[in-house]
Amino acid sequence: MEPFQSQEEVEEEEMENGLEKWGFRENEDLNTASGFTIRQVINMVMENLDAGDERPTIPLGHGDPSAFPCFRTSPVAEDAIVEALRSANFNGYPPSAGIPPARRAIAEYLSRDLPYKLSPEDVYVTIGCTQAIEVALTVLARPGANVLLPRPGFPFYEARAAFSHLEVRHFDLLPEKGWEVDLDAVEALADENTVAMVIINPGNPCGSVFTYQHLKEVAETAKKLGILVIADEVYGHLTFGSNPFVPMGVFGSIVPVLTLGSISKRWMVPGWRLGWLVISDPNGILKKTKIVECIKVSRNISPEPATFIQGAVPHILEKTKEDFFMKIIKILRQASDICYERIKEIPCITCPHKPEGSMFVMVKLNLSLLEGINDDMDFCFKLAKEESVIILPGVAVGLKNWLRITFAIEPSSLEDAIGRIKSFCKRHGKRQ
Amino acid sequence: MEPFQSQEEVEEEEMENGLEKWGFRENEDLNTASGFTIRQVINMVMENLDAGDERPTIPLGHGDPSAFPCFRTSPVAEDAIVEALRSANFNGYPPSAGIPPARRAIAEYLSRDLPYKLSPEDVYVTIGCTQAIEVALTVLARPGANVLLPRPGFPFYEARAAFSHLEVRHFDLLPEKGWEVDLDAVEALADENTVAMVIINPGNPCGSVFTYQHLKEVAETAKKLGILVIADEVYGHLTFGSNPFVPMGVFGSIVPVLTLGSISKRWMVPGWRLGWLVISDPNGILKKTKIVECIKVSRNISPEPATFIQGAVPHILEKTKEDFFMKIIKILRQASDICYERIKEIPCITCPHKPEGSMFVMVKLNLSLLEGINDDMDFCFKLAKEESVIILPGVAVGLKNWLRITFAIEPSSLEDAIGRIKSFCKRHGKRQ
Repeated sequence: MEPFQSQEEVEEEEMENGLEKWGFRENEDLNTASGFTIRQVINMVMENLDAGDERPTIPLGHGDPSAFPCFRTSPVAEDAIVEALRSANFNGYPPSAGIPPARRAIAEYLSRDLPYKLSPEDVYVTIGCTQAIEVALTVLARPGANVLLPRPGFPFYEARAAFSHLEVRHFDLLPEKGWEVDLDAVEALADENTVAMVIINPGNPCGSVFTYQHLKEVAETAKKLGILVIADEVYGHLTFGSNPFVPMGVFGSIVPVLTLGSISKRWMVPGWRLGWLVISDPNGILKKTKIVECIKVSRNISPEPATFIQGAVPHILEKTKEDFFMKIIKILRQASDICYERIKEIPCITCPHKPEGSMFVMVKLNLSLLEGINDDMDFCFKLAKEESVIILPGVAVGLKNWLRITFAIEPSSLEDAIGRIKSFCKRHGKRQ
Repeated sequence: MEPFQSQEEVEEEEMENGLEKWGFRENEDLNTASGFTIRQVINMVMENLDAGDERPTIPLGHGDPSAFPCFRTSPVAEDAIVEALRSANFNGYPPSAGIPPARRAIAEYLSRDLPYKLSPEDVYVTIGCTQAIEVALTVLARPGANVLLPRPGFPFYEARAAFSHLEVRHFDLLPEKGWEVDLDAVEALADENTVAMVIINPGNPCGSVFTYQHLKEVAETAKKLGILVIADEVYGHLTFGSNPFVPMGVFGSIVPVLTLGSISKRWMVPGWRLGWLVISDPNGILKKTKIVECIKVSRNISPEPATFIQGAVPHILEKTKEDFFMKIIKILRQASDICYERIKEIPCITCPHKPEGSMFVMVKLNLSLLEGINDDMDFCFKLAKEESVIILPGVAVGLKNWLRITFAIEPSSLEDAIGRIKSFCKRHGKRQ
C-alpha cells in the first residue's frame, strides 16, 4: 500500500500513482447524479453578466422570491419561530418522523381539502420538499425499477433517481392542452418494473394547474398500471387562474398517493427548510406493501428539520391570516398578467398557455427569427451579458429551445425586465 | 399488470398477489441499514417502564441533555438566531455548501486550534454532525471498499455504511489503555480496499480523550496504510480530565483528515441541526483525488440546514461567553466524578477508565455476580421496570454485557439514579 507523502515529498505524478486506489472517479452513484441542477445552470448564466452594466440585474430564473420585499413572509410565521425558540422546549433532537404536534398540524392542514381525514401517523416531516423527493425515490428504488417523470420537469428528480439507480422514463406535458399529462404516453412507457409516476401541480416549470377531471384521469391511469402517484404540491394553493388547486390526495382511494409539500412557497420561506411527505392512502395499501416501513427506516438514517422550526409549525399553519395569502396571490396574478401580455409583444417568443399557478411560465423560442443565437442556452448567456436579465434555459428542465421565466419578482422590475428582453430580441432579430 | 383495487374490492390475498411487483422487501439498501439505532434501543428499554412507579424516570441513556435546566444553551446563541430570523435576510435557499459567512466563521473557529489556517472553502455546513457522517461515508463508498470503525462506537456509522454498500471492519478500543485505538488491529484489518478509519474524540461511548501522542500515532498509521482519517469531534472541547482536546486536524499534514463537528453538544442544542464537514488537509491531497468534487456533488443533492440558523453561526461561534462553556464543563466534571465514585460501590459493575470527556462512561457488567439477569439488554429492561432508570445496553454500541451511562443530567438526579442502580444490583445479587 502506498503511504501519503508529506508536503515536501509530494510530486504530482507520485501522488496520482499512490492514490489511484481511492478511485474516486469510480463513485458512480455520485457521478451519475452530478448532472446540472437548476442552481448550477443559473450560476453558469450569471457568469456572463457584464460588470460594466450599471442597471440592476433582474433575476427571472429563480424559484425563490423571498428576497423581494413584497414577498416577505407573514409576521405570524416569524413570531411562531421566535416563540418556539425562546420556550427552550425544542432544543433537543426531534423524533425521526417529526415531532407529534407538527405531524398533527400538517395532517389537519392537508385534511381540510380532502374527503377523508389524514392521521398524524401519515405525515413525515422533512427538510423542505426536496428531502421529501429524496425519501420518496429512495424507498421506491430497487434493482430494475423505473419511475415516470414529466417533461418538462424539475431536474432534482432525475438527480436523486440516478443516485438511487432508479431508471427514469419521461412522459410529455402537452402545451396545447394546458400542459396536461400525456396519459397515452404514460401507458405506453409503463411496464411491470414501473413503480410510480410523478406530477407537479401547480406546475413547475409550466405554471399550469390541473383540473379535478384531469387529476382523476391521472389516478385512474395509475390504478390501471398498478403504480403509485408521487404528487409534488410544493406550490399548493399558489393559484390565480380559473382552475382551483385540487390536491392529488383527493383521489387517494383510487390510487395510493405520496403527497410532497412544504411551507417554502406559500409562506415564501424556502430557507426555513420545512416540508413533508404524506401518505394519502385511505385504503392502507402502502402499509401492506411495506412502503411505510421503508419510509420509517429512511427517516431513521436521514437528517431532520430543526426541532424549534417543527415546534413553530402548528402556529404557522393554523394562525397565518388569510390576508397574507391573498396579498401574495394578488401580486402573483398581477405579475403573471404583465408577463403574459408583454411577452406577446416579442415575435420570437411564444407562450402556449397563460400561467395559472406557481411562479413560472414556459415560453418557446423561435430561433428562425433570430440571428446569431444558437439555442436557449446561448440566448440566456447573451441576454445576461447584454441586458443583465437572468432566465433559465429550457434545456435545464428538459425542453431545449424553450425558456422558463419566473414572474415572482416586484411587478415594476418585471416590466423593466421584459422591456429589456424585447430590446434584446429586436436587436438580434433576423433582418427581413 | 394488476390494478389497485378500491376498498370494497380489497381482499388480503388478492392485494398481496397484486402488489408483489412492488417487491419492497427487496429494497436491500434500506433493509441492511435498518439495524437498531440507539434511539430504537432506548425506546425498547423504555417500554419496560412501570407506570405504577411514582418516582420520576431518570434517563441515563441519551446523548441529549438539552432538556435539563442546568444545560440550557447560552442566551447569546438564542439571540443570534432571533436576530438572523428577524433580519429577513435569511429566508431564501442557502448555497448547498453553506452560506459564506457561516463557512468563514467555522473555518476561523476551528483554525484557532490548528497549526495552519483553514479556508472557508474547506468547510461544508451540514445538518448536525450526523449529516456530516452521511456525506463522508457516501463520498467514500465505491464497489468493494471498506471502512474501519471503532468498537465500541456510534451505530449510525454502521447504518450509513450499510446503506452505501461500504463494508465495515471493526478495530477495538482498549479499555486497559484508556480506550485508545488498537493500532495493531487497524494495521491487520486494512487492505488495498480500505478507504478510511473513524475516530470519535472526545469519545462516544467511552468518555475518553485521546492524547496528542496517540492522535499522532493514529495519523502515522493511517499514512502508512494510505487511508484517510474521519475525525468525529462532535464532543470537541467537552473535556474535564487531564488530557486537553486536540483536534485531529493538527495532524492534517501527515494524513488528510475529514473533521466532523457541530454546535449540538458544546452549545447543548442538538435540535438546531447545525454541523460541519471540514477538509483538514493542508497538502490538498483530497482535492487531487476528487474527494472534494464528490463532496460538492453530494451536497448538491442533499438537504441543507435552515438558512437563518446558518446566518446565526458567526454570532454564535464568536460571541458566546467563556463562562457559559466553563459552567457546562464544571457540571460535567462534577457529574462524572459522582458517577465514577458511586459506581465503585456497586460490585457487579466495574469502570475501567474514568471519563475525561463527552457525556458518557462505559462500564462492565459482571453477570456472574447477578442472579436471573441474562445479559446487558435484560439488565436494562429489568432496571427500567423496577427502578425507572434508563441505561443504554452496551450491545447497542458494539460491546455486549457492558453499559453506556450518560452522566449529563442534573447532578442531584444522578445521585438518585446511581442509588437506584445500587439497590437493583443488591436485590439481584447472587447469594454467597
